[in-house]
Order: sequence, then C-alpha cells, then structure tokens
Amino acid sequence: MSDTVVVGLDVGGTSTRATALTLSGERLGTGRAGGGNPTSHGAERAAAELLSALRGALADVDPARVAAGTIGLAGAARLLADPAGRAAFDRAWHDGGLRCPYAVHGDALVAYASGTAAPDGTILIAGTGAITAQVRDLRLDRVADGHGWLLGDTGSGFWLGREAVRRLLADLDAGHTPGTLGTAILTELVGSADIAPRPRDTVDATVQAVTRQPPIELARLAPLVVTAATDGEPVATALITEAAAHLAESVGRIRPTGAQTPVVLGGGLLTADTLLATAVRAELGRRWPDAPLRTAGDGAAAAAWLAARDLPEVTDPSALHAHLFPTP
Amino acid sequence: MSDTVVVGLDVGGTSTRATALTLSGERLGTGRAGGGNPTSHGAERAAAELLSALRGALADVDPARVAAGTIGLAGAARLLADPAGRAAFDRAWHDGGLRCPYAVHGDALVAYASGTAAPDGTILIAGTGAITAQVRDLRLDRVADGHGWLLGDTGSGFWLGREAVRRLLADLDAGHTPGTLGTAILTELVGSADIAPRPRDTVDATVQAVTRQPPIELARLAPLVVTAATDGEPVATALITEAAAHLAESVGRIRPTGAQTPVVLGGGLLTADTLLATAVRAELGRRWPDAPLRTAGDGAAAAAWLAARDLPEVTDPSALHAHLFPTP
Repeated sequence: MSDTVVVGLDVGGTSTRATALTLSGERLGTGRAGGGNPTSHGAERAAAELLSALRGALADVDPARVAAGTIGLAGAARLLADPAGRAAFDRAWHDGGLRCPYAVHGDALVAYASGTAAPDGTILIAGTGAITAQVRDLRLDRVADGHGWLLGDTGSGFWLGREAVRRLLADLDAGHTPGTLGTAILTELVGSADIAPRPRDTVDATVQAVTRQPPIELARLAPLVVTAATDGEPVATALITEAAAHLAESVGRIRPTGAQTPVVLGGGLLTADTLLATAVRAELGRRWPDAPLRTAGDGAAAAAWLAARDLPEVTDPSALHAHLFPTP
Repeated sequence: MSDTVVVGLDVGGTSTRATALTLSGERLGTGRAGGGNPTSHGAERAAAELLSALRGALADVDPARVAAGTIGLAGAARLLADPAGRAAFDRAWHDGGLRCPYAVHGDALVAYASGTAAPDGTILIAGTGAITAQVRDLRLDRVADGHGWLLGDTGSGFWLGREAVRRLLADLDAGHTPGTLGTAILTELVGSADIAPRPRDTVDATVQAVTRQPPIELARLAPLVVTAATDGEPVATALITEAAAHLAESVGRIRPTGAQTPVVLGGGLLTADTLLATAVRAELGRRWPDAPLRTAGDGAAAAAWLAARDLPEVTDPSALHAHLFPTP
C-alpha cells in the first residue's frame, strides 16, 4: 500500500474536527479545535480553528504525504463565493504544511457520506435546526427546509422547544394544571412550577423569560421534551410524533416516491438513540419501505473519505468506507 | 340635562385619540395625536401625545366641566405599576386643565366597550397580534394568547404573513410553481416572481429578505393573504380558515361552552369587512350559536362612556351606549 495520506475536516458551530487517514483506512491522527463556522465566526477565526485542528491531526504525520483533503462546513457555498474567506482558508491550509489541493463541501454532504458510500440518497439533519437534501453522485442536489427558526426548521430542536412552551401557555390560559412536560418547562424558564394567584402573571413571566434570550435558545428546551416523551408524557409524545411527521414531510418535498436509495439521519436529535430518531425511522419506513436507513457518524473521517475516493490509488471506495464505518 | 362632560382616550401604538362627550352623548370635540403607548414609546413621550390629543378634544370645552375620564391603553397594568409613568400621565392630565380623577383600563376592555354595553362577554382582537379576554362586570378577567409573535399571536396578521411565506418556501423546495399568493409574496419580498435557475437561490433570497427586517414586519404581508383569499386563491383561503379556527380556539380557552354573552371583534383584521372577519364569525357562531357578535368601534368614545357610566347622573348607561354606537 502507498504511504499516501488524506485529511478531512468537519467544521461545525461548536467544534472543528480533523482526521488524517491512510488509504487503507488507518487513522494516523485526529485534531479538535473550537467552532469554526465562517458565517457565524468570521473567516479569519474559522481559519485559525481549522489550522489548530489540522495541526492536531498531523502531529505525527509528514504533511508532504498528504495527497488530498476535504473540508465540510455549513455555508460552504458562501465561503467559496467570498474571496477573502477562501484566502483565509488557503492560508491555514498552507500554514499547516499542506501543498495538495482541498475541496470544500456542505456539512450536509459530509454527514451523508458518514452514513453511506452510496452516491445517491437523502440526508436528513435535525439538531438545533432542520434541513434535508438529496445527494446525487455525492454532490448536494435539491434541498428542503433549513429556512431558519423564524420561517422553518420544522421538527428541529428549536421547533420542539417553542412548541413545548406554546402548549404550556395554552394550558395556563385555559386554567389547566400543566403536566410533567409543562412543569419541567416552567421550572426551567422561571425557576419554579408554582402558578401565580393570577395565572396571567405566570404567563407573562414565561413569555418574558423566553424573549429575554435570543429565540434560538428555545432549542435548549428540546431535551426536556425528549426526556418527557421517553417517560410517556402525553404532550411530549404528541410533539415527538408531530416533529417526526414534519421532518418526513420535508424529506417528501425532494425525495421521489418509491425511492430505494439510503436515507442518512444526522444531527444531535437523530444520531442519538432518542424517541424522535425512532419516530422518524418509523415515519420514513412507512413512506419509503425499501430505503436503507443509516445514521451519520464521524464527519471528519467522512470528509477524509470524500478526499480519498477521488485519488487514482483508491480502486474500491466502498470497501474503504466499510472499513472506516463498520456497520454495527 | 347637566352640562357635565366626560373625556375618553384611546392610546394606541400608532395614534392617540381623545373624545369629549356630554352625558347625553353629544360629541363636543375630538383630538388626535401620535402613538403613545408607554411600553413602546416611554411614559414621557406617551404623556405628551396624550396631552396633545386631550387639548384637541377640549379646544371648545371648559375643562372645569369635565367630571370624569378614562384612558385605555395596551399594557395598562404596567403603567399603573410604574410610579414615574403614572406621574407623567398625572401631569399631562393636569396640564390639560383637568382636576377630576381618571381611570386607566387595558385597550382590550375599551375595545370591548366600543362593541357592547353588556357587563359580561368576550373581546377577540386580531391585528398585527392576537389576544382575547373575558370581560366580567366591565373589567378584564381571564386572557388568552397575546403571547407575542415568537410564542403565540396565532391567527394574527403576523401569523398570516409568516404562514404565507412558509407555504411559498415549501412550494419552492418541492419545485412547484407558486400560486397567485406565493407569486404576490415573492414579488413583495424580492421584487420579482421569477424563480432562479437554481431554485434554492430564490429560497435563500426570500429567507434573507424576511430576516433583514424585524420579524414583526411579516404582519405587513397579511393584506396580501386577505386579498388573495377574496379572489378565491386556494392557499390563501386555507390560511384564512386556519387563522379563524386558531382565533376561535383561543376564545375557547377562556369562554365557557354555551355562553350567551356577546363577543366583540376588534383589531384591523376583524373590524374591516374581510374574509377573515366572516370566517371568524362563522366559527364563533358554530361554537357559540347564541352569542351576539359585535364589532368594535370608536375606542375614545368607548373610553368616555366607561367614564360616564360611573357618574351618578348617568341613570341608563345602556341608552347612552346605544346613542353613541347606533347598531347599523
């Protein structure tokens, strides 16, 4: 086997991860740094985190061995369209000692490739937000949702949190005692589950607790919904069912009826063994009974695999993928 | 008849209106000034607008004749709890030459009183936002919704605008050509109804056009929905039906089943002769078949009526109300 090395980077909002691989799938090193999304953090900061993660992955590797690299990040198209951003990434790549070219792909494609080697399929991601995309020949094709919390991200963590608060407020309006989920939400937001003598005061305190923070913080309530649903709480269970239906509806906007290509589930709400993941699998299985359902894995390794598969030495990319992502 | 005068003020976000009445319902003067909501404009500015409207109403009236006054405004409870705000209003009252006491009520109560003299009933308001309240003995009792655009205001102008954009984005995701409403929304937001060769670019441009502005600006799209529904456009018609159901559901949180007290419809979306008003009337009529449905009218006159009805000289407040708000 050649001593050629590929590197992959998965640049996320909260962390940047890098992996260096041989073409037989041996992990030579990994690196981790802070969040490096150029859209939210600025290109310079993102490039600095990228360099830091890269150095970690290459600590024991001669950079001259690296023949190809791939960077996956949200807003990849925006970076590629921005000469200053692109220059900052070029500089980091060069400062890491790398002389080979690198490709930039959307994080959704990298998440897809961490779940399957099939060139065509669907990626569905639900975390703070929600987005789904068709993949064709390992390129992102049509996209659905990902419209952000104000207009979309239906079925996401934000959506679960907001809906849980809305159900609580409806209960308080109607003079109903909140159930387990409502009680947990109320305690989280206002520090106590006691209803004021004038219930409208509790309503106002709840609304104010939410509106004091950026709206996206509502996503932090999603784990309360998932936990309550696991305990069989009816409001939470209904919300999980509804979220799964919304996510499957988004997939249905772009995925053909009867498609047999794989669907990869990504994002914190779907890669963990949550009731939402189970509900989404059931919903997708009902709509696309012949689709293999996969779970997204190590994004940095998937990015490295995307880099490797274009090298002439890699004659069987599927075998390399199977080695990197053994099915449980 | 005595020469006693009462004054009423309706303080809103975009205008402040004042009316001076005799106890037989003769309008002696009206005044109008800029928006004076103390929550959004600050108490000093609100008090200045109030004084300006008051002077207009009292231009031809000796202030010594004024025996009582009522001020209706959103966030009345907040003003009453704020000594500085209360002092600013006291000063404006005094600077207007008035020596009598005045009462402060929520704008929802004043809207209710502009539609009926019945002491008990329901007020439902849908404009930019949406709120409903039970009125008991001409005091606001339980309230539903009014939770703001992030968490509630379901069925409001904001809601209609946001849902119209969401339907448009779903169409664009799915590769469907938008209908008449979607076309109107797209033109309003991005200046053209042409779909980019890569439809995701049109999706992104639409999302960006919305997120560049404060979220509440989505309410400005509501008239497009109302107009399209009037033309029978199916998406708009469905949204109007859904909004009416949401508004009736909010009423159902607080209004007892079988109640026969009046329901007053207020707010720009329900006082105009819109399809939404028609749909809400139908929905309320179905749920509460014995409820008289009324439409809110002149808030300043209603505030003045609330002031008058507590005076010992006013022996028949209902007759005065009927005189002020003749049924068409």
